[in-house]
Amino acid sequence: VVKLSDLGEFGFIDKVRSWLPETGAVVGVGDDAAVMSGGLVATVDALVAGVHFRLDWSTAADVGFKAVSVNVSDLAAMGAEPRWLLVAVCAPSSIEEDVLADLYGGMVEACSVYASEIVGGDTVRSSELVLSVTALGSLEGEPMRRSGAEVGDVLAVTGPLGRAAAGVNLLLSQDPKKVVPEHAMACIDAHRRPVARVAEGRVLRDAGVHACIDISDGLASDARRIGEASGVGVEIDATRLPIARDAASVAEARGWDIESIVLGGGEDLELLVALSEEQLASCDVDLIEVGRVVDAGCWLVRDGNRTELGSPGFDHFKTPT
Amino acid sequence: VVKLSDLGEFGFIDKVRSWLPETGAVVGVGDDAAVMSGGLVATVDALVAGVHFRLDWSTAADVGFKAVSVNVSDLAAMGAEPRWLLVAVCAPSSIEEDVLADLYGGMVEACSVYASEIVGGDTVRSSELVLSVTALGSLEGEPMRRSGAEVGDVLAVTGPLGRAAAGVNLLLSQDPKKVVPEHAMACIDAHRRPVARVAEGRVLRDAGVHACIDISDGLASDARRIGEASGVGVEIDATRLPIARDAASVAEARGWDIESIVLGGGEDLELLVALSEEQLASCDVDLIEVGRVVDAGCWLVRDGNRTELGSPGFDHFKTPT
Repeated sequence: VVKLSDLGEFGFIDKVRSWLPETGAVVGVGDDAAVMSGGLVATVDALVAGVHFRLDWSTAADVGFKAVSVNVSDLAAMGAEPRWLLVAVCAPSSIEEDVLADLYGGMVEACSVYASEIVGGDTVRSSELVLSVTALGSLEGEPMRRSGAEVGDVLAVTGPLGRAAAGVNLLLSQDPKKVVPEHAMACIDAHRRPVARVAEGRVLRDAGVHACIDISDGLASDARRIGEASGVGVEIDATRLPIARDAASVAEARGWDIESIVLGGGEDLELLVALSEEQLASCDVDLIEVGRVVDAGCWLVRDGNRTELGSPGFDHFKTPT
Repeated sequence: VVKLSDLGEFGFIDKVRSWLPETGAVVGVGDDAAVMSGGLVATVDALVAGVHFRLDWSTAADVGFKAVSVNVSDLAAMGAEPRWLLVAVCAPSSIEEDVLADLYGGMVEACSVYASEIVGGDTVRSSELVLSVTALGSLEGEPMRRSGAEVGDVLAVTGPLGRAAAGVNLLLSQDPKKVVPEHAMACIDAHRRPVARVAEGRVLRDAGVHACIDISDGLASDARRIGEASGVGVEIDATRLPIARDAASVAEARGWDIESIVLGGGEDLELLVALSEEQLASCDVDLIEVGRVVDAGCWLVRDGNRTELGSPGFDHFKTPT
C-alpha cells in the first residue's frame, strides 16, 4: 500500500495533476498560483499549528500576518496584485477569544500592507488550529510562470536569503552560544513576519522576465522547480550565494553552515527569476545574480567544479530520517 | 477568559465582523459568499474529518463530491455560476494514495456536474484530514443576499427537506427497527452526495427574489438568519413543512420526530428564499411555500398559534449539552 509519506509532497502534487482533467485556465495546478481568463489570479495555502507555526514562537498576530504574506507571495510570483482574501479558520473550542482577535488583527495588518481586504471565510471546529487562506488578485497581461526559463538565462533573486531559516534554527536551538542580539532578532522577525515582494513581482512581470517562483522551500528546491517546469537545468554559483548578513552573523556565532541555510531554508519570500542578460541590465528591481540556466541537471558550481545540487527543502510528507 | 466554545459559531462570526475593517466589496463577510466588483463571487468552506464527514460513513469519493457541493451551494445562494475551485488538503502522512485518489475523483466528478474545474491547491501535513475548498464563480447583475426580505414576503424552498439529516440519524443509530431500504438509501445518499441548486439559484436571481440562503444548518437556523440580516421576523408554518417522503418514511419507522429533523437538519443544500406573491406565481422554479416574513421574531405557527422557533441547527463551537 502506497502512503502519502512514500509519495512525499512533490510526488503527491504530481499525482494530483494526473488525477485532474486538463484545465481551461491560463495556468492551472503546478505553478505558484492559478490564472483564469480575465486576469483573475488565485492561490490557497493552509498553515497547520505545529507544522507551519508554533504559538510559543510567534504571537497569534504574527501567525495571521504570515498566513497572508505567504499567500500574497504566490501572487507576487506571477506578477499579480493581491486584492481579496478568504480565510477558513479551523480551531479547537478551547481556543481563547483574545488569541483569535490577535490572529485576525495580524491578518488585517498584513492586508493593509498589501492594500487587500478579507471578504469572506469559514469557521469550523477541529482538534488542531489550521488556517486556510485564499488570496485573489488581478493581473494585466501575461503572468510570469515557472516554465519559461531559457538556456543561458541568468538566475537572480530579489534579496538576500537565509534569515527566516536562521530564525527558525535559533528558536529550535538550545545552544547557549551568544549571537549578536539585533542579528538574531532580524532573523526571528524574518521568520515571524515575512513580507511578500509584490511591487518587485509587478516590475519583473512588466520587464518580461522568462520565469519566476517565490522561494518558499529554499533556493535549491525552488531553482530545481524552475528547471523542471522549463525543461532545462539550473546551476547555482556557490561563490555568489545571496547570504543575508544577519543570517551569516548568527550562523557564524553558532557554528552553523550558512550555505545549507541559504540553499535549504525557505520562507524568506524573495522571488527567484530567470531572465536574459539584457533584462538583468535594464530591470528596475535590485536583483542578486545567483546562477545560470543550463541544458540539464541541478548543479552547485564552485571554482569551476560542479556538484549535484541537493534538495534540502522542506517536504511535508516524507518521514524524517 | 472567553473561549471559542463560549462564543459559539455565530457569536464568533459576529466577532470576526467586528475585527475586520469595512470592505469595499459588494458583499463581504456574513453572507453565503463574497461578491467583488466585476461579478466575481467567492466562498470557502473547510471540512474536518470527524466533524463534517466520517470515512466509515462515506467513501473518500463521496467526501470529495460533497466538499465541492457545499461550496457550490454557497455560490448558488447568491445566484452565481461556479467556475473554478482551489483545494487545500491537510492530511496525515499515513493516509493511503488510493484514498487521496478517490477523494480527488469525487471532487472531479462533482466539478463535472457543475461545469467547473479545479485550478489550484495546496497540500500540507496535519494530524487530522481537513479539506478546505474555495469556489469561485461569476454573476451577472445583482446578487441575491440574505438581507432583502420584506414584511409580507413568502418564504419558500426549492425542494423537500430532511433526507440528509435522516441519513445521518440512520448512520448514527444502532436501532434495529426496520426501514424501507430504498428510503433509507435515498436519505443516506442525500447526506453523502448532496447536489447544489445552481440552475434554480440563477433563475431565482433573474426573477429578483428579495433574499436567499442555502439551507446548510437547518430550516429554522437559516430562516432566522434571513430574518436577522433583513431586520424582519420569520414565521414557519408547521402545517406546510416541506417534508421529504423518504425522510418521513424513515422517521416513522424509527419513531423519530420528523418535524425536528426538517427544522434542524442541515445539508440538503436546498435554497430558502423570500419573495413576493407575484414572484412566487410567475417564477420558473418549483418552490414549496413554507412561511412568511413578518415584523419581528422567529416563529413556528400551527393552527393560528405561534410558538418560538428554536434554533436546533448545528453550532460548531458550543459545548454539547
